[in-house]
Amino acid sequence: MDPKTYAEAGVDIGKADAFVARLKLASRREGHRRLWPACGGYAAIYPVHGDLGIALTTDGVGTKLLVAIEEGKLQTIGIDLVAMCVNDLLCVGATPAAFLDYYATGKLDEKASDNLISGIIAGCDQAGMLLVGGETAELPDLYQHGHFDLAGFAMGTVSRPSLLSGENLKPGDKLIGISSSGIHSNGFSLARKLIAVDSPFWKALLIPTAIYATPVMVLLNEYPGSLKALAHITGGGWTNIMRPNKNLAYVIEDHLAVPELMKFMADKISLEEMYKTFNMGMGLCAMAAEEHVDRVIAAFKANKFEAKVIGEISNKKPSLTIRGLENGKEIKLPVPGK
Amino acid sequence: MDPKTYAEAGVDIGKADAFVARLKLASRREGHRRLWPACGGYAAIYPVHGDLGIALTTDGVGTKLLVAIEEGKLQTIGIDLVAMCVNDLLCVGATPAAFLDYYATGKLDEKASDNLISGIIAGCDQAGMLLVGGETAELPDLYQHGHFDLAGFAMGTVSRPSLLSGENLKPGDKLIGISSSGIHSNGFSLARKLIAVDSPFWKALLIPTAIYATPVMVLLNEYPGSLKALAHITGGGWTNIMRPNKNLAYVIEDHLAVPELMKFMADKISLEEMYKTFNMGMGLCAMAAEEHVDRVIAAFKANKFEAKVIGEISNKKPSLTIRGLENGKEIKLPVPGK
Repeated sequence: MDPKTYAEAGVDIGKADAFVARLKLASRREGHRRLWPACGGYAAIYPVHGDLGIALTTDGVGTKLLVAIEEGKLQTIGIDLVAMCVNDLLCVGATPAAFLDYYATGKLDEKASDNLISGIIAGCDQAGMLLVGGETAELPDLYQHGHFDLAGFAMGTVSRPSLLSGENLKPGDKLIGISSSGIHSNGFSLARKLIAVDSPFWKALLIPTAIYATPVMVLLNEYPGSLKALAHITGGGWTNIMRPNKNLAYVIEDHLAVPELMKFMADKISLEEMYKTFNMGMGLCAMAAEEHVDRVIAAFKANKFEAKVIGEISNKKPSLTIRGLENGKEIKLPVPGK
Repeated sequence: MDPKTYAEAGVDIGKADAFVARLKLASRREGHRRLWPACGGYAAIYPVHGDLGIALTTDGVGTKLLVAIEEGKLQTIGIDLVAMCVNDLLCVGATPAAFLDYYATGKLDEKASDNLISGIIAGCDQAGMLLVGGETAELPDLYQHGHFDLAGFAMGTVSRPSLLSGENLKPGDKLIGISSSGIHSNGFSLARKLIAVDSPFWKALLIPTAIYATPVMVLLNEYPGSLKALAHITGGGWTNIMRPNKNLAYVIEDHLAVPELMKFMADKISLEEMYKTFNMGMGLCAMAAEEHVDRVIAAFKANKFEAKVIGEISNKKPSLTIRGLENGKEIKLPVPGK
């Protein structure tokens, strides 16, 4: 039987959220008051000198790894790793600076590691950051059968005036959808169960995650104030739209093209589950006041991304409402972490 | 048959070194010239503002994890994780600031994750740093049977004048051995094969790795210039002593007490292999000009570490010579990465 939800596929988002919440409580010490508030918790920001803060984030690529291993195609999974971290950094308004990777495997394979590292370097080049270090761990009894794990750690710099905090979002601001390159690196424990290895969509699973650094840097540097917030659509799908400010109502009325592989999966599970798990064609949601919308769209289009207004912020009760769907129904998603 | 070397235990240090070397070549781009030279490559240092640099490093705890899992004792493995990263940061003269963890498991277990995070927070408290974030990944098909992996990322700040680069070390400078708390987090793939679960030494494997932040910060802040270099004795054992400056000869004549569990293992494999793999009672080697030796020793002793002069730097050909061993023999270890 095909799994119908992400939990049935073996990933319990609720429990993972609870753990993150506990972690926050446990670590909320005196010293944490020093940290600057950052958009949606996408990165922590540690102040180091006057208006200069250091943005820090870490991520992995989830079980997209297993698809790459099964396909024997490790050349681009490093791009995914960098993308998952750097897109989070961008959401707080930081300029990507340095990246480190943690690569753990049962038995080091030179060809595999060359391919992985090449992808990481390609991703860093796309993001304008330097690969400054990493750890390669051979753990013979922990990883087996060519398995390995990858984690990434990204550092960026941000000046307090250009920090994106999401605090100044207000009703009337526009939501601008930016196209994804495909499934990116989320929802794979479910996708791997819904898409068979011999499916025409199987290979599309490995398309590298889009890196949004170039257009975002153009906007932050050349048009300061044009972006009010950015939401990287990562684990948790479209619930991420609410992360920059959980006290607002977000209403979606229009849509970017949904990738074929997601349409295929949508025939097997509920549309609500799809939007809670996958990016549904939108890898990043930019938020801007109406007068800056054209500028924001132009910056992304100049870098080959599709971009258009898909909705706006309203003064209703905090929520995310998705309209304009093919089946004519309306979806409401829960505020994450509440 | 018991393994006689680290390679027989499944870990090929040579190949891992080759990979690190390739990584360095591959990433040696234009932008890397901006990075500051740092003692022994223990951390990368990214300059952000005038004399202010950001030190970055990542590490894991190796297969010490598997001992913790087998024992069902996860309370202190987080201390090891922080220690492995923070001791590296100290070696470049950085002040520990922020820590992030990557925790990947097959199925999130609340008790296990509570224990892990408690240990990480305890380690951060010891090191005077903040746990500012992390990633908890549920990867159902990658980790099995209660297995998981942990990686840590640490950020510190360093001002250019207090940077430890190892460049000003010279013949006559003293090597000061600082006691370890036990095996720390290195050589476990070998140790797990030499020490049986029912051995009296098994439980000693889990003693948390010492964190040297407090005495090192006293020396860096209150007695600037007193430390010329620090070598964290980590993977590769005593070959780490040569990392701060590979153009010098290091001669060891005296020794700290060797932990019983290492004496037990030394009956089964060669002493050379022991010194290439384990810390042999010395978790950190501080290097100082003769006039600062008493000050350095006093700072560590005030924090309950054993500390004494164990040797000095000579003007011979680059090498590490270990004398004063019980069997009267002399060991020479190869310069790492050469």
